[in-house]
Amino acid sequence: MSWNTFGRIFRFTTWGESHGPALGAVVDGCPPELDIHEGLIQPYLDARRPGQSRFTTQRNEPDQVKILSGVFEGRTTGTPISLLIENTDQRSKDYSEVAKAYRPGHADYAYDAKYGFRDYRGGGRSSARETAARVAAGGLARLVIPEVSILAYVSAIGGDAINPANFDAAQIGQNPFFCPDAEAAQRWEALVDKARKDGSSLGAVVECVATGVPAGWGAPLYAKLDADLAAAMMGINAVKGVEIGDGFAAATLRGEANADPMRLDADGSVDFTANHAGGIAGGISTGQPVVVRVAFKPTSSILIPVPTVTRADETGQRAETDLFTKGRHDPCVGIRGVPVVEAMMALVLADHKLLHRGQTGR
Amino acid sequence: MSWNTFGRIFRFTTWGESHGPALGAVVDGCPPELDIHEGLIQPYLDARRPGQSRFTTQRNEPDQVKILSGVFEGRTTGTPISLLIENTDQRSKDYSEVAKAYRPGHADYAYDAKYGFRDYRGGGRSSARETAARVAAGGLARLVIPEVSILAYVSAIGGDAINPANFDAAQIGQNPFFCPDAEAAQRWEALVDKARKDGSSLGAVVECVATGVPAGWGAPLYAKLDADLAAAMMGINAVKGVEIGDGFAAATLRGEANADPMRLDADGSVDFTANHAGGIAGGISTGQPVVVRVAFKPTSSILIPVPTVTRADETGQRAETDLFTKGRHDPCVGIRGVPVVEAMMALVLADHKLLHRGQTGR
Amino acid sequence: MSWNTFGRIFRFTTWGESHGPALGAVVDGCPPELDIHEGLIQPYLDARRPGQSRFTTQRNEPDQVKILSGVFEGRTTGTPISLLIENTDQRSKDYSEVAKAYRPGHADYAYDAKYGFRDYRGGGRSSARETAARVAAGGLARLVIPEVSILAYVSAIGGDAINPANFDAAQIGQNPFFCPDAEAAQRWEALVDKARKDGSSLGAVVECVATGVPAGWGAPLYAKLDADLAAAMMGINAVKGVEIGDGFAAATLRGEANADPMRLDADGSVDFTANHAGGIAGGISTGQPVVVRVAFKPTSSILIPVPTVTRADETGQRAETDLFTKGRHDPCVGIRGVPVVEAMMALVLADHKLLHRGQTGR
Amino acid sequence: MSWNTFGRIFRFTTWGESHGPALGAVVDGCPPELDIHEGLIQPYLDARRPGQSRFTTQRNEPDQVKILSGVFEGRTTGTPISLLIENTDQRSKDYSEVAKAYRPGHADYAYDAKYGFRDYRGGGRSSARETAARVAAGGLARLVIPEVSILAYVSAIGGDAINPANFDAAQIGQNPFFCPDAEAAQRWEALVDKARKDGSSLGAVVECVATGVPAGWGAPLYAKLDADLAAAMMGINAVKGVEIGDGFAAATLRGEANADPMRLDADGSVDFTANHAGGIAGGISTGQPVVVRVAFKPTSSILIPVPTVTRADETGQRAETDLFTKGRHDPCVGIRGVPVVEAMMALVLADHKLLHRGQTGR
Repeated sequence: MSWNTFGRIFRFTTWGESHGPALGAVVDGCPPELDIHEGLIQPYLDARRPGQSRFTTQRNEPDQVKILSGVFEGRTTGTPISLLIENTDQRSKDYSEVAKAYRPGHADYAYDAKYGFRDYRGGGRSSARETAARVAAGGLARLVIPEVSILAYVSAIGGDAINPANFDAAQIGQNPFFCPDAEAAQRWEALVDKARKDGSSLGAVVECVATGVPAGWGAPLYAKLDADLAAAMMGINAVKGVEIGDGFAAATLRGEANADPMRLDADGSVDFTANHAGGIAGGISTGQPVVVRVAFKPTSSILIPVPTVTRADETGQRAETDLFTKGRHDPCVGIRGVPVVEAMMALVLADHKLLHRGQTGR
Repeated sequence: MSWNTFGRIFRFTTWGESHGPALGAVVDGCPPELDIHEGLIQPYLDARRPGQSRFTTQRNEPDQVKILSGVFEGRTTGTPISLLIENTDQRSKDYSEVAKAYRPGHADYAYDAKYGFRDYRGGGRSSARETAARVAAGGLARLVIPEVSILAYVSAIGGDAINPANFDAAQIGQNPFFCPDAEAAQRWEALVDKARKDGSSLGAVVECVATGVPAGWGAPLYAKLDADLAAAMMGINAVKGVEIGDGFAAATLRGEANADPMRLDADGSVDFTANHAGGIAGGISTGQPVVVRVAFKPTSSILIPVPTVTRADETGQRAETDLFTKGRHDPCVGIRGVPVVEAMMALVLADHKLLHRGQTGR
Repeated sequence: MSWNTFGRIFRFTTWGESHGPALGAVVDGCPPELDIHEGLIQPYLDARRPGQSRFTTQRNEPDQVKILSGVFEGRTTGTPISLLIENTDQRSKDYSEVAKAYRPGHADYAYDAKYGFRDYRGGGRSSARETAARVAAGGLARLVIPEVSILAYVSAIGGDAINPANFDAAQIGQNPFFCPDAEAAQRWEALVDKARKDGSSLGAVVECVATGVPAGWGAPLYAKLDADLAAAMMGINAVKGVEIGDGFAAATLRGEANADPMRLDADGSVDFTANHAGGIAGGISTGQPVVVRVAFKPTSSILIPVPTVTRADETGQRAETDLFTKGRHDPCVGIRGVPVVEAMMALVLADHKLLHRGQTGR
Repeated sequence: MSWNTFGRIFRFTTWGESHGPALGAVVDGCPPELDIHEGLIQPYLDARRPGQSRFTTQRNEPDQVKILSGVFEGRTTGTPISLLIENTDQRSKDYSEVAKAYRPGHADYAYDAKYGFRDYRGGGRSSARETAARVAAGGLARLVIPEVSILAYVSAIGGDAINPANFDAAQIGQNPFFCPDAEAAQRWEALVDKARKDGSSLGAVVECVATGVPAGWGAPLYAKLDADLAAAMMGINAVKGVEIGDGFAAATLRGEANADPMRLDADGSVDFTANHAGGIAGGISTGQPVVVRVAFKPTSSILIPVPTVTRADETGQRAETDLFTKGRHDPCVGIRGVPVVEAMMALVLADHKLLHRGQTGR
């Protein structure tokens, strides 16, 4: 089935394809009386916007968000907020090849198997272009959780990781990779350039940290905060893995090494002396920073031919062929995943804040 | 909030605590006219049952499932199926210590922060005992997807991984670790024994493969098959990471190495020559085996003292203390996670089969 | 599909059939720290309990509710509360006739058409016996809304209505009809007795008034308070109509006659001088009493034969026959609908209180 | 909370206010491969369109629907369909009065109580203008259920009912009242003209019949077909009552008079000889016509002053005042309710068709 809504109280529904006239999100359940205007959302879209360096797709989209409902005199009314982003650079190219053969690694074959039919232009609904709508919705979500700061960055590209000792948040905005390690950013420039020139692509890891989340958000058992974050992140295009806190590394530790001991601050408040758990225990936030790590596969669209097959023709026959994907694409889709990961973090946290308040009144 | 229901059409709701009189699941949306009796569910509970070797908790529970509704003359009626499992070995022990201080790594502190209050006996609702209800529900789910075979096993304990060359599915039932590599099983015996004797615990990785899933199950965008699996797995107690297919390893590959080329079989049907994607593209199954990998942290309950703090007393004061968790627990909770991972795989697939059929009629 | 869950934050799921071993409800999303014990729920079940007069079915069920989870030391923990009611008087009678032919007015034919199969003993899942589970859940819901008082009563039986001038709430518990008009209660005694002796049955109208609901509960547009109440009431067995406030009578009024003028109290607070709207405007409560009116059809089980047809046999053939329903039934099912209507009112209001708090923090 | 989504598989979400730039609906879960273009939806909007006679509001809106997503080469793709309708006649008038005082019978007071704040221009989100989005979504829903014919009409205005003996479906489109009785239509002309000239308004009853619904759609217990229809209809602006089949009249009948006897047709198929139940038993369709009756209150906006109070000023003070609603409005809002009732019927049936198929494969 098609299921384009996410969230329980703070819910958003997205719509739109890569090559349709527009895409958008309807955000429902947003609290009333929040100060809001397009300028509070646009910066997140600008961060995600393509065409800003040679390391991202050359599709040129201004991605200007318009608010069509749910706001009056500069404040949210509590009713649904419709956000619209027009597509302006749906370059008219020849799609006859991808209409006929499946791009390996893409959703093409699976969509045809599901729906018997697909909009093949630029990936249609499965295009990462849809993430613009999520980023816009995420901008709204942030207004719901002013107590929380969210920071995401690329921690590895093509297996080349940052050095934690070099971590400098101020660097993240200073390079085209959302990289907090200036040295790594330099290395990645060469690495991504080479992949790009080879017509290839690279995978990446994105980390995201949310600070200021109070203890108590989340829900046992099937709306656990970590389970909802896992769904949110795994639902981003090209994502193949999600970790909370130490993630897979925790599976190599012994119990005492993985414990997050607790002490008291000078003022008597609780202080954890480690955060292996990534700020979540039993599905509920502990008050520590919430830490998520997300693996992006390399962009499936490459200029290197890959063996594939054609759509069944009217007699049910298919043929083998080799396909490479012409056109504009990101050599490392994980880079532009950074604002999307931040948006999904904001969306999940906003929802859980309201869920927690609804049940407990806290 | 509390949210104890999972699924969209094939939905289940669980209830119960570690030390209550019983726990259970209500399964709603199950198709009618399926042959069903307790004997078709019990084997999965038996596989998960504690106390079967020295490598799992010594709590002794027969975990006999009873069907209380939704079945008539040996067939499902299409109405809700209530499954009940009685708790019989809630050993009356002294919980005064855990009532007062938080067990690090457990949900204790987070629950108190959320609800102001918790059932501290054996972890209450956050106990892994609840997974018995999921395993029972999973047994029902398997009846909905007879075309699918699900197999899970432990692929690493404490960082010691199986050798894929030794993989032998027949071994999985021959050792207390659900281990498909006889050599690894031998090494793990020593490894887990040592951890157990040290009063410590070990993490583990569980892999799960579902074969027979046809192409087309899943849903863009917020009910993607991989996103739903991620939520399902991350929602299991002690899980900190989830991968689909190559997972984090995909982030280190170049595009051409990560591609899953497609060829035609002799009979003209589509054949993938690799499965980096783990059987899911764009959130929709491709017809290849669905592959999920799950990281379990080491059991948080250990006999080694960890620094912690007490609950706030009536004047709001806390104290520092060191706590070790007496009583029965699994030295490696990932082992008994195997039947739970299988159950969650079955539950997600059953739901998506029905969702797909609902929207598309296929 | 089967869909046995109701509510958005305060949710309950029921299960069980007329002639199974038990039935129950799982209530999820209940706030923590509420004082709770079975004695707070039992009185509502006692009010609904059959066999208390000759005007209700002679099935003898103690309907003792057991709490199986979600409560610790006499308080709700915020986790799911499992309520169980055992069936003790599933008299073993001969169902061969209803197994073969459809009882007109019952769900028999529709269930078979839907599921291909049904538990025909006493109506199975479609039996009004299921409402015991709702009444138990409703008892919990009332604990969530202590500011609200809910009162339902029968306002008409078989077309014979109470006289509003005789309304006396104290009478409701003094007669077997939940009737607030002592004169009407006397008339109904003869009326229902005659129907009973004729082997016939009577319809009824139940009114329900909730006072103390503050202004602001509800939600535009598809979770309006009145829409949710309509669904809740229409979902009760045998209900065929629902009105809010003046209901169908409002359709005969002119605008100025239907208006609810507003004035100020001596203390400056808002005071409505009429309540045609039944306490709800635009789907949101106004602070006036919430008034709902519910039409129950006459019990379909009667001792008077009605033309019907048999189930298709193995060759697909049906036959015509006449059927009358032996066994125990209520001559006027609307009477025992009173505690059910109250329960559904409580369940909807509890949910909307929490929804309102979740979104707005109020 | 705000909750602007309706449905379980075939779901739609609406957004927009009376005086915003546009309004719209996102339809999710629509099956793929349906032939679709704006011309298949527009006729339903045209039927609802204001300004077509002196008996409806003079607001002049072309209500041209645009499809922004989910359609490719003239067919639905199975992904979300975004429908947009621009507001073109948001006449700039003086709203200072309604900004300050509450229009009795409107949602004004309740919205302020809920959200602390509202878009008061033309009712904002609570305006019946939103129903244009539902009618557009309903046009899509009809494509999902080609086996079903839906017909609604006004059966009474201001208490003056049609004569069933005069029923002629061909008349419905021949008068400005959707009236199937030519004589009643003539009487209503005078009746509504008088109310209009008096500055008053009238209530109405709308009946809706869906033929072709097969037996088996619906769901016990909380997604009963009748319960979902009740929610759908009660959620329409100005609706105060909903009946299925005989509705409140059934409450005055004895069991044998209310029974729907069953006989066999010449071809051996099941034939009901009455339809008191309105085509639904136990929440599931019986194969008979589904019959719903809906009560609309008189339009609350009238030119006759009604006592009301002002918003609380900054010091919390309110004042009494009398308010009459200038501007354009329908003298009988039930008339334009006809296409909305039809749309909601289509939306509920489409959803239940897919739900039924999902669970049972039928």
